[in-house]
Amino acid sequence: MTTRLSLYDTTLRDGQQTQGVQFSPHEKARIARALDALGVDYVEGGWPGTNPTDDAFFEAPPTLRATLSAFGMTKRAGRSAANDDVLAAVLNAGTPAVCLVGKTSPAHVEQALGIAPDENLESIRESIAHLVAEGREAIFDAEHFFDGLALDQGYALECLRAAHEAGARWIVLCDTNGGTMPADAAKGVEAVLRAGIPGGATGIHAHDDTGQAVAVSLAAVDAGARQIQGTLNGLGERTGNADLTTLIATLELKAPWRDRFATGVTDEALAGLTRTSRMLDDILNRVPRRQAPYVGAAAFAHKAGLHASAVGKAPALYEHVPPKAVGNERVVPMSNQAGRSNLRQRLAAAGIDAAPDDPALARILDRIKSREAEGYSYDTAQASFELLARAELGRLPPFFEVERYRVTVERRRDRRSRMVSLSEAVVVVKVGGEKMLSVSESIGPDGRDKGPVNALWRALAKDLGPFQEVVNDMRLVDYRVRITGKGTDAVTRVVIDSEDGAGARWSTVGVGANIVDASFEALLDAVRWKMVRDLSAAEAAE
Amino acid sequence: MTTRLSLYDTTLRDGQQTQGVQFSPHEKARIARALDALGVDYVEGGWPGTNPTDDAFFEAPPTLRATLSAFGMTKRAGRSAANDDVLAAVLNAGTPAVCLVGKTSPAHVEQALGIAPDENLESIRESIAHLVAEGREAIFDAEHFFDGLALDQGYALECLRAAHEAGARWIVLCDTNGGTMPADAAKGVEAVLRAGIPGGATGIHAHDDTGQAVAVSLAAVDAGARQIQGTLNGLGERTGNADLTTLIATLELKAPWRDRFATGVTDEALAGLTRTSRMLDDILNRVPRRQAPYVGAAAFAHKAGLHASAVGKAPALYEHVPPKAVGNERVVPMSNQAGRSNLRQRLAAAGIDAAPDDPALARILDRIKSREAEGYSYDTAQASFELLARAELGRLPPFFEVERYRVTVERRRDRRSRMVSLSEAVVVVKVGGEKMLSVSESIGPDGRDKGPVNALWRALAKDLGPFQEVVNDMRLVDYRVRITGKGTDAVTRVVIDSEDGAGARWSTVGVGANIVDASFEALLDAVRWKMVRDLSAAEAAE
Repeated sequence: MTTRLSLYDTTLRDGQQTQGVQFSPHEKARIARALDALGVDYVEGGWPGTNPTDDAFFEAPPTLRATLSAFGMTKRAGRSAANDDVLAAVLNAGTPAVCLVGKTSPAHVEQALGIAPDENLESIRESIAHLVAEGREAIFDAEHFFDGLALDQGYALECLRAAHEAGARWIVLCDTNGGTMPADAAKGVEAVLRAGIPGGATGIHAHDDTGQAVAVSLAAVDAGARQIQGTLNGLGERTGNADLTTLIATLELKAPWRDRFATGVTDEALAGLTRTSRMLDDILNRVPRRQAPYVGAAAFAHKAGLHASAVGKAPALYEHVPPKAVGNERVVPMSNQAGRSNLRQRLAAAGIDAAPDDPALARILDRIKSREAEGYSYDTAQASFELLARAELGRLPPFFEVERYRVTVERRRDRRSRMVSLSEAVVVVKVGGEKMLSVSESIGPDGRDKGPVNALWRALAKDLGPFQEVVNDMRLVDYRVRITGKGTDAVTRVVIDSEDGAGARWSTVGVGANIVDASFEALLDAVRWKMVRDLSAAEAAE
Repeated sequence: MTTRLSLYDTTLRDGQQTQGVQFSPHEKARIARALDALGVDYVEGGWPGTNPTDDAFFEAPPTLRATLSAFGMTKRAGRSAANDDVLAAVLNAGTPAVCLVGKTSPAHVEQALGIAPDENLESIRESIAHLVAEGREAIFDAEHFFDGLALDQGYALECLRAAHEAGARWIVLCDTNGGTMPADAAKGVEAVLRAGIPGGATGIHAHDDTGQAVAVSLAAVDAGARQIQGTLNGLGERTGNADLTTLIATLELKAPWRDRFATGVTDEALAGLTRTSRMLDDILNRVPRRQAPYVGAAAFAHKAGLHASAVGKAPALYEHVPPKAVGNERVVPMSNQAGRSNLRQRLAAAGIDAAPDDPALARILDRIKSREAEGYSYDTAQASFELLARAELGRLPPFFEVERYRVTVERRRDRRSRMVSLSEAVVVVKVGGEKMLSVSESIGPDGRDKGPVNALWRALAKDLGPFQEVVNDMRLVDYRVRITGKGTDAVTRVVIDSEDGAGARWSTVGVGANIVDASFEALLDAVRWKMVRDLSAAEAAE
């Protein structure tokens, strides 16, 4: 018999507290859908009323199987819950669940809020009761709970009871400053259970300030808590929140957790864990952490001479879980065997068949290896990977050739003495022996200059002769740039996402010392991939 | 009464197992000295006889207060310890301590070594006895111990007893594949103590495969182990070793550890922890992990509107340890959630005084808010924040004005028909009424074109008239690009890090629909910040 654990994700709210992180409403929706596919129980979307992004997200939230939650704080002292405008904004978001943070330590109540402890108790009670009266599932986030418990156990527990008695579905013990040790978290949970809050209504919200957010979360569950709050990749303020990516894998795969508890994460969803983790880094334009547990590129990489030779023989001796279970891969240096069958699988998924003994397979692996050493990344640029493979397999028509290009950006004062920019690109291509010169500016519909890459794209797409129709419905929808390496070895990696009228979306990569060259390379791949796709579809239809 | 814990660092051996990490002998010596200054008890320098770097290091090791240790493995079956050439190489390094890894699980003995369990016992016994006979301090590293214990408790413990009885000073329980939970590590230590190995001879060596290496190490200590093995910054194979940086801070600063245990780390040395951590990243040419516990740049960064205003009043409520104790700093970044008191604090930290009632404060906050809505981010661009504030406070001299610029990137075939690129920039500035035209290409020392931003930087820095000397020692050291917003609202945010000859490093931000414009804006801020800094230093010296 397993006990059900509840997983509450706060990537979109607490994760957004990370320095430099600001999601767009579109990105929030994309992450929410990925979390939903993973199988978390709650997705906390943000704090309505505090910024336009969160408001936009809640105005048109994605449809989820998970319960959507909004974050807020308990009402201020001296006004009723119904008249608190901050609380009203949270309720107006219309989410089925609402999580309110409130204080549980007399020191915080007096020093930070400047009100009496009794006023705080009343705020908690009335705010939660108000949520329940409005038909919402109420969650109470007990801020600085473990510090409060150490300072004044009676008061801290009274705060929780006030929330519980007012109808809160969950009482979440929040280790706000992240300094609580796993054993102290367990003792805290035990004190809460003794105070009459059931384990099935108790949650844990940990931060990684001593590198133990995962251990704290698991210790709290071991002591009886039944909800874990965390974020994808441990995103969050300071050192981050408890890493839900790591926790999900541990709960599903490791003893004693897998035998004692169940979550909403299926085996199939778990196999998408690595992909989900990388997607978040991709949105944040961050380099994925190679050493991340379970999902890092190095998590199953064996380097030691001690192990590498034995890993192939008996992987279970050297790997604490099978990498495939979380959608990751074993990396064994000098082993091409595993690489080749993976490669054929990946090609087949792209509709490219290759015989197991095709010598092009080894060439493709070599080429990917050497290009990744140069800074290319094919994980996030599937279309460029397919083109590389097709080229080695002799299945990439030449289509067209670029003779040369030139792009100019000029910034100067206009007649009214305002600084304005103008980008202009000339592209010269050869299609079937014929030379085509195209020139384009880059003025957007708002009259502003959109820069050199846009100008290059317009010039390239202006005249491709017989292939013109193929590119006419193409649009560039995203553009990401990352500098890899340092100093004189630095290179620029550009990833471009494209879409077409049929709703297809594909990603291509370019690398160079020069950002314009890297961008142009990714543009060319984008166009070539579309040509391959459209022209083979046309052939098939014939 | 506190109990002494032993800290054993293996950055130079297990840390070197990390993919892509290869220290030079000089770097090893530098790291060893830094570890020594920190106060660890043992520095493991490498595995003599397996690679030239380790041999070179052991040939001329640095003078340390810590005990220098060499790593190796127990002798092979079928020969005597004295005749094992691998073991002989380890002994030849002449270190006072030697750590030998040996197997303790029958599955590993049979499947990986292909020998009988009794032969393995004999290898352990004879190898350790040989070390002792040679006058060395012997340490036994029990590989895959926790897996072995689960499979065959009797045999695993017999292996440890063999090492202990042969004279090993330490028996180190190694969680080689990193899958052991803290509670199971504690149970393992308890079983070892029951088997007659004293806690004072028992150590723990954990890996981070479930994100719990720190918790596993502490759980083992709690159960009686008295040595912790780990690495700086958690360097190591796969997900890394137990992070000694985090562990040292926790043991020294956090209850119950600080009250129950003592290490060789003094308060003064602890205040150098952040510097030591950054030094390792510097040697590895890695970007330091912002979210690292204690030592990360974000470890004490407060962003949340909830906390930021209260942190200044009562830091102990919001920080689990004082940042200064580990040589780190509190960061209260500017963001759209921050208020006027934060702002004054932040300005004061930058040496800019403003009266509490200065009307410029409100204007600065408004300006930051509206610019962050446009895509700027001042969290990561402190220098641009300072310039914005100075401008509103009327404390930013005009220095120079940009009249116009033009940058061209051209790609075409050279005489040998290879595609080559050439970037060229023209910048026109006015300094004190005088117009300066500068032009520059962008060819790097390797002959490759470095792109339009580099060309612009060179042209701008070529002639700034009376300010020329100020920019002469400036270098651009990092360049990051992020596209924010989608579709037609997309803007490019560029952050540039600069350094100068005096070792200062500062970050500036630029935003625009056009990547070249955004980059140029960040460049201008970088130059202006340096002018403000250098010229006010010159004034102060007068």
